[in-house]
Amino acid sequence: MRLVVVGGQAAGMSAAARARRLWGGLEIQVLERGEWISFGRCGLPYYLEGRVGALEELAAHTPEYFRRERNIAVRTGVEVAAIAPARREVALAGGERIAYDRLVVAMGARPKGTGLPGGGLPQVFALHSARDAARLGEFLERRRPRRAVVVGAGYLGLEAAEALRTRGVSAVTILEAAADVLSRGDAELTRRVRAHLERFHIELRTGVEVRGIEPERVAGVPAEVVVLAAGFQPNTELAAQAGLELGPSGGIRVSDRMETNLAGVYAAGDCVEVPHLVTGRPVYRPLGTTASKTGRVAGANAAGERERFRGVAGTSILGCCGLGIALTGLSETQARQEGFDAAAVWIEALDKRRYFGGRLTGVGLVGDRRSGRLLGGTVLGEEEAALRINVIAAALSRQMHVEEFQHLDLAYAPPFAPVWDPLLIAAQQLVKLLH
Amino acid sequence: MRLVVVGGQAAGMSAAARARRLWGGLEIQVLERGEWISFGRCGLPYYLEGRVGALEELAAHTPEYFRRERNIAVRTGVEVAAIAPARREVALAGGERIAYDRLVVAMGARPKGTGLPGGGLPQVFALHSARDAARLGEFLERRRPRRAVVVGAGYLGLEAAEALRTRGVSAVTILEAAADVLSRGDAELTRRVRAHLERFHIELRTGVEVRGIEPERVAGVPAEVVVLAAGFQPNTELAAQAGLELGPSGGIRVSDRMETNLAGVYAAGDCVEVPHLVTGRPVYRPLGTTASKTGRVAGANAAGERERFRGVAGTSILGCCGLGIALTGLSETQARQEGFDAAAVWIEALDKRRYFGGRLTGVGLVGDRRSGRLLGGTVLGEEEAALRINVIAAALSRQMHVEEFQHLDLAYAPPFAPVWDPLLIAAQQLVKLLH
Repeated sequence: MRLVVVGGQAAGMSAAARARRLWGGLEIQVLERGEWISFGRCGLPYYLEGRVGALEELAAHTPEYFRRERNIAVRTGVEVAAIAPARREVALAGGERIAYDRLVVAMGARPKGTGLPGGGLPQVFALHSARDAARLGEFLERRRPRRAVVVGAGYLGLEAAEALRTRGVSAVTILEAAADVLSRGDAELTRRVRAHLERFHIELRTGVEVRGIEPERVAGVPAEVVVLAAGFQPNTELAAQAGLELGPSGGIRVSDRMETNLAGVYAAGDCVEVPHLVTGRPVYRPLGTTASKTGRVAGANAAGERERFRGVAGTSILGCCGLGIALTGLSETQARQEGFDAAAVWIEALDKRRYFGGRLTGVGLVGDRRSGRLLGGTVLGEEEAALRINVIAAALSRQMHVEEFQHLDLAYAPPFAPVWDPLLIAAQQLVKLLH
Repeated sequence: MRLVVVGGQAAGMSAAARARRLWGGLEIQVLERGEWISFGRCGLPYYLEGRVGALEELAAHTPEYFRRERNIAVRTGVEVAAIAPARREVALAGGERIAYDRLVVAMGARPKGTGLPGGGLPQVFALHSARDAARLGEFLERRRPRRAVVVGAGYLGLEAAEALRTRGVSAVTILEAAADVLSRGDAELTRRVRAHLERFHIELRTGVEVRGIEPERVAGVPAEVVVLAAGFQPNTELAAQAGLELGPSGGIRVSDRMETNLAGVYAAGDCVEVPHLVTGRPVYRPLGTTASKTGRVAGANAAGERERFRGVAGTSILGCCGLGIALTGLSETQARQEGFDAAAVWIEALDKRRYFGGRLTGVGLVGDRRSGRLLGGTVLGEEEAALRINVIAAALSRQMHVEEFQHLDLAYAPPFAPVWDPLLIAAQQLVKLLH
């Protein structure tokens, strides 16, 4: 029995490792197009700013490790050209064919915008692969640009903007096509993030669609270096050609066992869509956590277990110039679009006692007037204060009502939190609006 | 219509403030025995170690503030001698009688052990009131003792031990009657806390019952100063004399609306028992958070609203010599005692990426083999890592299963957390044990 995994990053290697743990005798082959496997792409902005010394440090394991310790055969630098489900074969670019009994498709995603006019100019970089980061790092070192444009105000764009400032770029402008940051449709969040960025000499311009890149400017903004961070699109072309169904979000459609529509073929990671725990509808949310989890479930089921992936709450966090920005569930605008009778609050409160250096932490909560359910939240705070988002994420997983959330028995002690945690203060305010 | 509140600390003032907000025309009188109201007793160890400069800083508000801003009459230094529910009157020590329509009993708790032989010696201190802290602070300043004994390894005992070391006491010994710290029956937790304390020259001796205090030693341990931190007992004598029913834990028995057995009489705070969200059974857990919440609900219902208090998960957190120690729900031993078929795991994992200074965080989780439910957890970590306990607390509120908990969509980004949060790693381990 042979399991073939296409893609050796978070989802693919999680699938392979989990299948091995559950089935010692299974033959497992992983085919990875790039040079490295299990590469911690989320660390690229920190490589750029110098916190991570060498790109190698971001690769959790080597192919040799997987071969030796896990009895998993990993081939790197191998391009899959086609999947032939009728023959249960994968065809490589060189013509070689590899038969499989079970297949896990974990082909990931690629950055949007590289095909823009001017996207191939030498001062234009994505920040998706190790090679991207290495090239951009060398460019900054050699050319010492003073002015940069970052295209996209998602988490990668905000992290990249900070990294550019840290590397000495004096003027950084972020151009975002949408009206708001982080694909959230949240004007209050955008206002606060913009104000914070300004203190660090990063300009945020929203509602600016970039249609092309000129040699010295982007959408009228002078730029000696451009970083593309306008989101990702799933690599689904080969899968679609092979007859795998795509879902409404554009990702590969999978069951809660990560099965595709074809027998014996599973998919996971940045190329699939997943159900949203609040709406129940499929969404495309390419994130490292989801990739690892869906990969783990795909690997288990490919190895004959019966495991489920429940879905995502849409939780994410990022640090930008000392501010932690964390989101989960739906914003007020998103909740309205999904048909909820949404109400929202925003509060600021100290994250701990003043004599322990308590600082203002912002908490936004969204609830549904009809059902009383909590629908989403936002936390802005210094250091680890924003990790409070996880409490909201746990509540969303169980469709908790705001009434219950306001009574949560959260921890209190002066060095850690006030008697009324900012989460509870926000919930009390929201309860009033829902009545 | 007159509401009388007996007790002007967290529960009493929360009740009064909430009643005022809901009913502008209600007459509200608060009777407080001590000098200060809304006093942040949890800050006393930090006053002792010098972080809080003056005791006044721990009093959130003055009686004058409540009179002026909230139209609430507060009398301090007033001792209630009896409650006469038949006449709807409260009698003061001086003979004065005050009629009420609604009464909130929030008489708090007092430290155990002050009645021990030798408990009145001049070098023996509780750490319950502002006066206790002022006296102990003066004693340390004047006498500069070298050796101290702290009686009790609950949160106050651990905090007091650190404060004594900070104030220059070179040898601090904690004596605890139980086999384990924090009333938890958790040998693993005790082992880890003991090892941590030893690094800071604090000795923890468990299984040592203190039956009396001698002038220069306690249970054979030399001590020039002794701090009593052996827990609290509810002030229920007056309530019991007035015919208020007590529950099995010793606290005043209340409904989920904080009603006592007597019409128009509510009770809240450190003198009541509350339901435990995991077991459904009443427990006595005197903590500032619970006092504020039960007070708030008592005040709302006394003012004619209909609000419920759902119960406690038993969440607490404390910082001791740089280590955050957080608990919620049941330990394995407690779960067995409650009739669960308990299984437990303990793991250590980095709390964030190594290149962001990730440090080992310990997570213990307890589950029930029969139902698959999560029953409790422990988190040990540096700085705010231990605040992860709140995610477990939210899950316990909804009786989440471990299977679901392991899939929670928690936030990931290198500065904040690893791809697999320590909570999820622990849950994955526990799921294996439960199958």
